[in-house]
Amino acid sequence: MKESTGLGIVETKSAVLFSPPRERTLEGGEKAGPVTIAYETYGRLNPAGSNAVLIAHALSGNAHAAGFHEGDAKPGWWDNMIGPGKAFDTDRYYVVCSNVLGGCAGSTGPASLDPRTGEPFGTEFPLVGINDMVDCQKELCDFLGIGKLLCVTGGSMGGMQALSWLTRYPGRVRSGIPIATTMRHSPQQIAFSEIGRQAIMSDPNWNNGRYYGKKPPAKGLSLARMIGHITYMSDESMRSKFGRGRKFETQASKLVSDFLVEGYLRYKGEGFLKRFDANSYLYLLRALDDFDATNGRPATEVFAGLEAKILVIAFESDWLYPIWQSKEIVRAAESAGVDVRYCEIPSTYGHDAFLLEAEEQTPVIRRFLEEVSGTDQVI
Amino acid sequence: MKESTGLGIVETKSAVLFSPPRERTLEGGEKAGPVTIAYETYGRLNPAGSNAVLIAHALSGNAHAAGFHEGDAKPGWWDNMIGPGKAFDTDRYYVVCSNVLGGCAGSTGPASLDPRTGEPFGTEFPLVGINDMVDCQKELCDFLGIGKLLCVTGGSMGGMQALSWLTRYPGRVRSGIPIATTMRHSPQQIAFSEIGRQAIMSDPNWNNGRYYGKKPPAKGLSLARMIGHITYMSDESMRSKFGRGRKFETQASKLVSDFLVEGYLRYKGEGFLKRFDANSYLYLLRALDDFDATNGRPATEVFAGLEAKILVIAFESDWLYPIWQSKEIVRAAESAGVDVRYCEIPSTYGHDAFLLEAEEQTPVIRRFLEEVSGTDQVI
Repeated sequence: MKESTGLGIVETKSAVLFSPPRERTLEGGEKAGPVTIAYETYGRLNPAGSNAVLIAHALSGNAHAAGFHEGDAKPGWWDNMIGPGKAFDTDRYYVVCSNVLGGCAGSTGPASLDPRTGEPFGTEFPLVGINDMVDCQKELCDFLGIGKLLCVTGGSMGGMQALSWLTRYPGRVRSGIPIATTMRHSPQQIAFSEIGRQAIMSDPNWNNGRYYGKKPPAKGLSLARMIGHITYMSDESMRSKFGRGRKFETQASKLVSDFLVEGYLRYKGEGFLKRFDANSYLYLLRALDDFDATNGRPATEVFAGLEAKILVIAFESDWLYPIWQSKEIVRAAESAGVDVRYCEIPSTYGHDAFLLEAEEQTPVIRRFLEEVSGTDQVI
Repeated sequence: MKESTGLGIVETKSAVLFSPPRERTLEGGEKAGPVTIAYETYGRLNPAGSNAVLIAHALSGNAHAAGFHEGDAKPGWWDNMIGPGKAFDTDRYYVVCSNVLGGCAGSTGPASLDPRTGEPFGTEFPLVGINDMVDCQKELCDFLGIGKLLCVTGGSMGGMQALSWLTRYPGRVRSGIPIATTMRHSPQQIAFSEIGRQAIMSDPNWNNGRYYGKKPPAKGLSLARMIGHITYMSDESMRSKFGRGRKFETQASKLVSDFLVEGYLRYKGEGFLKRFDANSYLYLLRALDDFDATNGRPATEVFAGLEAKILVIAFESDWLYPIWQSKEIVRAAESAGVDVRYCEIPSTYGHDAFLLEAEEQTPVIRRFLEEVSGTDQVI
């Protein structure tokens, strides 16, 4: 592997898709269009258009997956995995990442202006499903001149998008790498979403989604994010990071304890307010819960006839998307005769491992992509 | 085992303890007294005073552990374990259960009137630790004429109280059965408490604890309870109970989904409002987080010199108080030469198993108590 130098400065661009008369009917039955989709690309598309890798982001992610924005101290959210010589090697592959429909980082979402009223959509925004996010990505691929994706990948909600691609557009993908994800939410996962929803909707500032230009439901969103963080870490990673350590500061109330882990969660919850919209959070939670890659079919039929190869990656200590759910994907693919590999990584980081375990994931993914691209002239 | 007929009608009584000049200095340094402690007793204390079993309740429990209150359709919270012929056999043992100090079911707590002001204490109530709860129980034992307890037991927060008895009053107990508990909260457990705290304190109706006579922080407390319920069940028990079932009702908002598990959590959250005080919840969460049976000592010294026998019970699918924490208690006891047994029950109910798995726990507990009471004439 060559020494990584990173991508340097990158930029978010945007594309307007589904303009009239090409409006799209969404999964929930409502219409959308035109929609703006924010995206970034790294590397170059080869003349054959055969070296494109689509990265799908998780709940709180965005199009800025790698490299630095001008003036930023921190790179994109998967910079340890995307770049020259990295897992998704931009010397070989053309990497695309877009912000999901319903998001709040450049793509059309509940905070966008409703052209009918000139006001932000709020809860008038149509319900969006994982499949709708994918359909925007497919439209974006057309726009970028990508015929068939070499690979579609992502962790968590990103993994669901990979599964949606594989099951709904098998002719448009040569491979998929669903990471730390599931074919559908279990009731425990729905329950955690519901807590997040209730936290936001119980905040009086939420005001049925009409808070734009006023005080946003900061406490509710921050609380929802804190809950998320607990589920992203493992019991063990919390122990090694915080133990029962305390910080000895003056406390706001004697009822508030001062354990380090509490300070960390509050800090994470508050930091989230700067970059996320509460209504988007609600829409995306709903999309996560509603997603079902089986679409009511028996597991054995989910990947029937699929020619794309699949690499499923799961992490031992991930209790939010436990390994049995990844194994379920593998079984479904195996039973359909799909070329599927399973890689279980013994990380202690919990669900966050897909963002952190670059060293473990890199050789597995590089090898898989090399095999999929085969004798292709990738660049 | 004889056919169980149940305890029939029982009553909650109360005792006033720590009256002047016997005020007590609490763990947090503040003074308390006099305090009222609500309790129930089942069975009869033998003339030797040697057949008393103290039951300590969990976070949302109360003194009403078994039997029926006049007119009630449901019995006490551990009725499947306490009564004639049951695990805690009231034909043999004198069973006592009291509501903890800081609680809200008859014992003095934040909703009680502050004699200095004539108003409810609210957050003026002193901080209460697990050890303070135990000291009230010890005082209650004196009041009831119990010299040395045959056994002290409880699940979850009740198990912490059992550990406090065993480590702080080794001369007053012949045995202890800590169930589904820990010597101290891990950061993940503290994190879940913190979410519960933030849910309540973020509710504007909480009003820094001054809500008595006004609207209580119903949404916050309900949300805190919903979070609790997720941690009490297991992934598997939720799957078998709810799956991805939906109820097809008109929805309040399109953003609220209609999965059965959500309806269940909301129902449980709302039901809790009738019987619990939000400030009590905050005080008890704080006590849970602060508790540390090791009191800074190496694990090997925690039970040094203890003559009482210990039976540790843990449940395979309990992820809130995972089995490694029960095994830690066992190791600490073993290393101190204590007569300790460990029983791991392969339940799928999660943390709730200690309330539900009566059939599995009963023979183990009956046998243990028979061995501890030995050749005693118990009645």
